[in-house]
Amino acid sequence: MQELKDRIIKDGEIYPGDVLKVSSFLNHQLDTELLDHIGREIADIFSKSKITKLLTIEASGIAIAMGVSRYINVPIVFAKKNKNKNMSQDVYTAEVVSFTKGTSTQVSVEKRFLSKEDSVLIVDDFLAKGSALNALTTIVKESGADLVGCAIAIEKVYQGGGAEMAQKGIRVESLAKIKSMSVEDGIVFED
Amino acid sequence: MQELKDRIIKDGEIYPGDVLKVSSFLNHQLDTELLDHIGREIADIFSKSKITKLLTIEASGIAIAMGVSRYINVPIVFAKKNKNKNMSQDVYTAEVVSFTKGTSTQVSVEKRFLSKEDSVLIVDDFLAKGSALNALTTIVKESGADLVGCAIAIEKVYQGGGAEMAQKGIRVESLAKIKSMSVEDGIVFED
Repeated sequence: MQELKDRIIKDGEIYPGDVLKVSSFLNHQLDTELLDHIGREIADIFSKSKITKLLTIEASGIAIAMGVSRYINVPIVFAKKNKNKNMSQDVYTAEVVSFTKGTSTQVSVEKRFLSKEDSVLIVDDFLAKGSALNALTTIVKESGADLVGCAIAIEKVYQGGGAEMAQKGIRVESLAKIKSMSVEDGIVFED
Repeated sequence: MQELKDRIIKDGEIYPGDVLKVSSFLNHQLDTELLDHIGREIADIFSKSKITKLLTIEASGIAIAMGVSRYINVPIVFAKKNKNKNMSQDVYTAEVVSFTKGTSTQVSVEKRFLSKEDSVLIVDDFLAKGSALNALTTIVKESGADLVGCAIAIEKVYQGGGAEMAQKGIRVESLAKIKSMSVEDGIVFED
């Protein structure tokens, strides 16, 4: 998706430690017009698939999923990062290691929101090593729902998470695929 | 907003300890059509105000703000709950005590995303004692931006957060105002 790639080049900030900040348009400040276009693009890519639920993970994933829901009008379920007393005990859980935060977190989805009748499209902002995506696909599998695929805004291809998903036979579609990235040489996209 | 009130009566779950769960449509699973209607309603209420930014707090607030942004097409900024290494050091911070989670969290907004040129509408899913709203209004004040007001989906009026805001001269508009709530007697709305 050229618009997203252009925006990453324009406003993405590369930091040492392989960190790409897109805070000004995708995960702290949100460019809602761009999110609308991302949503339309994802809906186009999966237009032939039956989808009954969008699954994502808090927090930035919610914005991407809300963008998609303008074009695929189904409920969104977002995995929660910390169990709280508001949450039913009847949950699917999985572990997510955050590359950027250097933490490990348990994420949960209440069982009543995913069932074997569902056809689920997973949506997220980033794919790097694939820890969040692994957790979400594990939860979908546990629920017995059909996994349609995964739609990602930005994939760091060189970190291997996407390839790992593909090896498992999971369809992953990323709108901006970064082949290499460094403070010195900037960002190089695939294709 | 009758549609929201009806939905709370139908699908809201009351738990001991004054907990209202709206997980099935507003903060775990998201009814995207309802969020669209909430967004339209909030945009209608503030249609005479100049708004340049929507400010909310992760995670559920993002869904409400995305709904509003369909009708008020300005950038969203969401306050982040944990500082991570992706975050610039140049931030506004404030403290939020979560009533439902029983925790205290520091929330942050990068300074570059709010300035004195901005006119800010704060948006959130819940208003109870007003801790989150207090934090967000503090951040807006610090930034020098104009605070247009606060738009809330569900307010527990009896917990006093809304009255406290009104005393400070801050405009608060809540779409469903709960006057009283108990497991035995259910939910009673204002008006």
